[in-house]
Amino acid sequence: MAEPQGVRQEVRSAVAITPRAKDYGQWYLDVVRTAQLAEHSAVRGCMVIRPHGYSIWERMQRELDDRFKATGHQNAYFPLFIPVSLLAKEEEHAAGFAKECAVVTHHRLKSIDGKVSVDPASELEEPLVIRPTSETIIWEQFKGWIQSYRDLPLLINQWANIVRWEMRTRLFLRTSEFLWQEGHTAHATDGEALEETWRMLGVYAEFARNVMAVPVVRGRKTPGERFAGAVETLCIEGMMQDGKALQMGTSHYLGQNFAKSAGVQFLNAEGKLEYVYATSWGVSTRLVGALIMCHSDDNGLVLPPKLAPLQVVVVPIFKTDAERAQVLEEGSKVASELKAKGLSVKFDDRDGVTPGAKYYEWEAKGVPLRIEVGPKDLEKGSLCLARRFMLEIQGENDAQRRKRSKSFLPRAEALASVQPTLEGMQGELLDRATALRERRSRVIDDIQDYERFFKEEGGGFAWVHWAGGVEGEDELAKRFETTIRCIPMPEDILPAAKGEGKCILTGKPSQQRVLMARAY
Amino acid sequence: MAEPQGVRQEVRSAVAITPRAKDYGQWYLDVVRTAQLAEHSAVRGCMVIRPHGYSIWERMQRELDDRFKATGHQNAYFPLFIPVSLLAKEEEHAAGFAKECAVVTHHRLKSIDGKVSVDPASELEEPLVIRPTSETIIWEQFKGWIQSYRDLPLLINQWANIVRWEMRTRLFLRTSEFLWQEGHTAHATDGEALEETWRMLGVYAEFARNVMAVPVVRGRKTPGERFAGAVETLCIEGMMQDGKALQMGTSHYLGQNFAKSAGVQFLNAEGKLEYVYATSWGVSTRLVGALIMCHSDDNGLVLPPKLAPLQVVVVPIFKTDAERAQVLEEGSKVASELKAKGLSVKFDDRDGVTPGAKYYEWEAKGVPLRIEVGPKDLEKGSLCLARRFMLEIQGENDAQRRKRSKSFLPRAEALASVQPTLEGMQGELLDRATALRERRSRVIDDIQDYERFFKEEGGGFAWVHWAGGVEGEDELAKRFETTIRCIPMPEDILPAAKGEGKCILTGKPSQQRVLMARAY
Repeated sequence: MAEPQGVRQEVRSAVAITPRAKDYGQWYLDVVRTAQLAEHSAVRGCMVIRPHGYSIWERMQRELDDRFKATGHQNAYFPLFIPVSLLAKEEEHAAGFAKECAVVTHHRLKSIDGKVSVDPASELEEPLVIRPTSETIIWEQFKGWIQSYRDLPLLINQWANIVRWEMRTRLFLRTSEFLWQEGHTAHATDGEALEETWRMLGVYAEFARNVMAVPVVRGRKTPGERFAGAVETLCIEGMMQDGKALQMGTSHYLGQNFAKSAGVQFLNAEGKLEYVYATSWGVSTRLVGALIMCHSDDNGLVLPPKLAPLQVVVVPIFKTDAERAQVLEEGSKVASELKAKGLSVKFDDRDGVTPGAKYYEWEAKGVPLRIEVGPKDLEKGSLCLARRFMLEIQGENDAQRRKRSKSFLPRAEALASVQPTLEGMQGELLDRATALRERRSRVIDDIQDYERFFKEEGGGFAWVHWAGGVEGEDELAKRFETTIRCIPMPEDILPAAKGEGKCILTGKPSQQRVLMARAY
Repeated sequence: MAEPQGVRQEVRSAVAITPRAKDYGQWYLDVVRTAQLAEHSAVRGCMVIRPHGYSIWERMQRELDDRFKATGHQNAYFPLFIPVSLLAKEEEHAAGFAKECAVVTHHRLKSIDGKVSVDPASELEEPLVIRPTSETIIWEQFKGWIQSYRDLPLLINQWANIVRWEMRTRLFLRTSEFLWQEGHTAHATDGEALEETWRMLGVYAEFARNVMAVPVVRGRKTPGERFAGAVETLCIEGMMQDGKALQMGTSHYLGQNFAKSAGVQFLNAEGKLEYVYATSWGVSTRLVGALIMCHSDDNGLVLPPKLAPLQVVVVPIFKTDAERAQVLEEGSKVASELKAKGLSVKFDDRDGVTPGAKYYEWEAKGVPLRIEVGPKDLEKGSLCLARRFMLEIQGENDAQRRKRSKSFLPRAEALASVQPTLEGMQGELLDRATALRERRSRVIDDIQDYERFFKEEGGGFAWVHWAGGVEGEDELAKRFETTIRCIPMPEDILPAAKGEGKCILTGKPSQQRVLMARAY
């Protein structure tokens, strides 16, 4: 019987998470591995999203899709392939994506000298690019859907896979193929299109905050960071635990660029032909990476209860056969009662796995709440609730915190407290992430302070006045590996960072501060 | 103002559906077009699924996904790309798909002589095939997931896009890219794997019947029709209104073929290494085609209420401004009250579109129930319910049936009748499809009768004894364009077709009849 060995292995692999303080990059990979979220595949740069990771993505999809539909959008599906000539129609767009395109050139294999090979006789008349984004193919189609102002606004979203050939990949954060949604909308006026661009950025920010428990800064990208073919690119930026920024979603105002290259005109209310105004916006499986890097700890994954595939796990504890029967019965009842409240619950009654091994496993997988059911609990009519995380108290060690994470409550009280506890934990995660961001945000007016912040103090979000232009941006990128994450919208500027001032690099006057950081 | 013209156009295009009796193929395309379900794209062989078509697919997905999860399956996601050498590992499988593979050979574009072209310097070391199905890439990954019998069964499903290069395409039924789900499971014994193969076929059949309102015959494919690499292929076959069969889903028992080619072994309970047993099963957007062809009529799409994106449309009717205000208020109330019952309802209060135009449009789009609200209804405190279809009465003309489809009921009674009416319509569609299938099924023992059935009487499902082998199958395919759809499971054999007999072609003894038909 090889099984007990398997168990020990499971415990070991759960334990073997590199601490964040030691190596943040390795810690991230260890969390992804032990939580069984994703792994590399046989194809360079492409990841496999394992069931636990995928079910987090499914929950994100459901939440986002509900928000898209509530704001009037409809889902549709467009081809995976884009003929090269079609991609080339919008020049800037084509130039932006040319270097990372997977290109289909043939449509048949055959056996050549006993080896399965590409059949040279099957070359396509025109090569097809795997969509790196779908503006060109979608606007080609919109041509047939839009005749008059009555057909506008046209509010479309697509859930799809995307390919951008990447040389250096990182699970969830940067892979050659990834999953995303891309909204594509058409409007009669620039004002309406701009309103939509900001509206969807708002949807992303609200989702990040209220569902992912990640506070974000909303703002505009500088011209150099704009989406290829966009007039304006908006983004949301979150802070990870290492102080780096992660772009979590973008929303583009495309003006009439794609309408012109695809020839999409509409008859306006005055009976005149006019080009349509466009937006596009997207978030991807990258958000799973953001979720991990923002909340998880040295014991593994930490999930906000709203996105946890399992919210509660019930673990039975027993020694004798008599205890076993009683404890399994009670555990099963507890799980059923919680399921009846609409919670996602697992009763882990596996034989041959110790309670300790189960604790480690479910902790590593980020289950927010564990309920332990043992013979003593049965005697007392109580249950033990163990929270996946506790807000830290300064000076406390890990064992003390573990102790504090457990509460022993009378059965009815314990069951009644599950939902409020989960809601509380959702709020605490947001509080913790917000506190981290505050701690690592700095208003900086001097380039020496800037250098110290990023080179000695670990860095974070630097709020600086800027009028240094593209060359200045390049200089800062070279010296400090920092970039302008965004020109924040006024509401999202750190209170202490409001007002006018002088550029940190050139001393030129500046209207407002920008957000600088190192980024993923 | 171009708008009234637009309206007339809308009505015209809704009316312009070729009758089934005149040209069934054109009728199908007309229904797809007027219901705005899908259309061809700029890419040869690839379709665009429009919002109305996509939302039917979303409903199918939700129903199927619930069933997969209820039977213990989890979703995951695997790469779009399969290295040619990996596809080639299972020889029969590779040979089966070699002729319809889209192959990626390069990863960059560049401007050559001012034209965006494939960069010859970006050729991949190994070409990548776009997945035509994912057995090879998934089993490569399963290798790392399966060590002992404790890891089994492994029950995985994937929702994904698939590419099989097709020369002759038909919207929904056969396109180069399509959307589907593919289940891939691993088991410790052949018995468990076979059980799973039949279980999932049962899930498909139940879904087809209870959700799509399409009765199906479950059975086994003959060896020539098996999935490339399978030991056994099971299928469900539905009958379309032209009497042709449509394969609506398949479930494959793969034996140890893929486990062996990928080298996936597990330690069994006796501590011995053994190859894993596998299944795979899938349904695709083809089901939307089946839905259309099975239920729709000369006025457009007919949808079973369980899959209708809109179940009820409320249309206001008025002449004067005073009537308008009252009727819009009542219409909005009616819609809200129905929405509160959990129904999917649209209140069509568009200005500048006549009620008649609205009727045509929603009929063409398959909305099961229309509620008309006019000044007379307000006066009487009644509502008019108009059903999208009525079971036919012999000798009745279209106008008579239209009249019969309307009922004028007191308001409260009308609202209370909506849900039972929809449930009734769901059942009636299944009854109608079942009756059609019975009418066009024939037990045939003589090749002359067989010829008459298919060449003179329009054909349908022919139940015949068979022991003619592959050559005999080829002969029948050539003479009559018919194929063995399946060797039905005993429960699904037409009662009059049960028992032993002699092959219709060779006269050899046969244990049971098979199902023969022309097929899509």
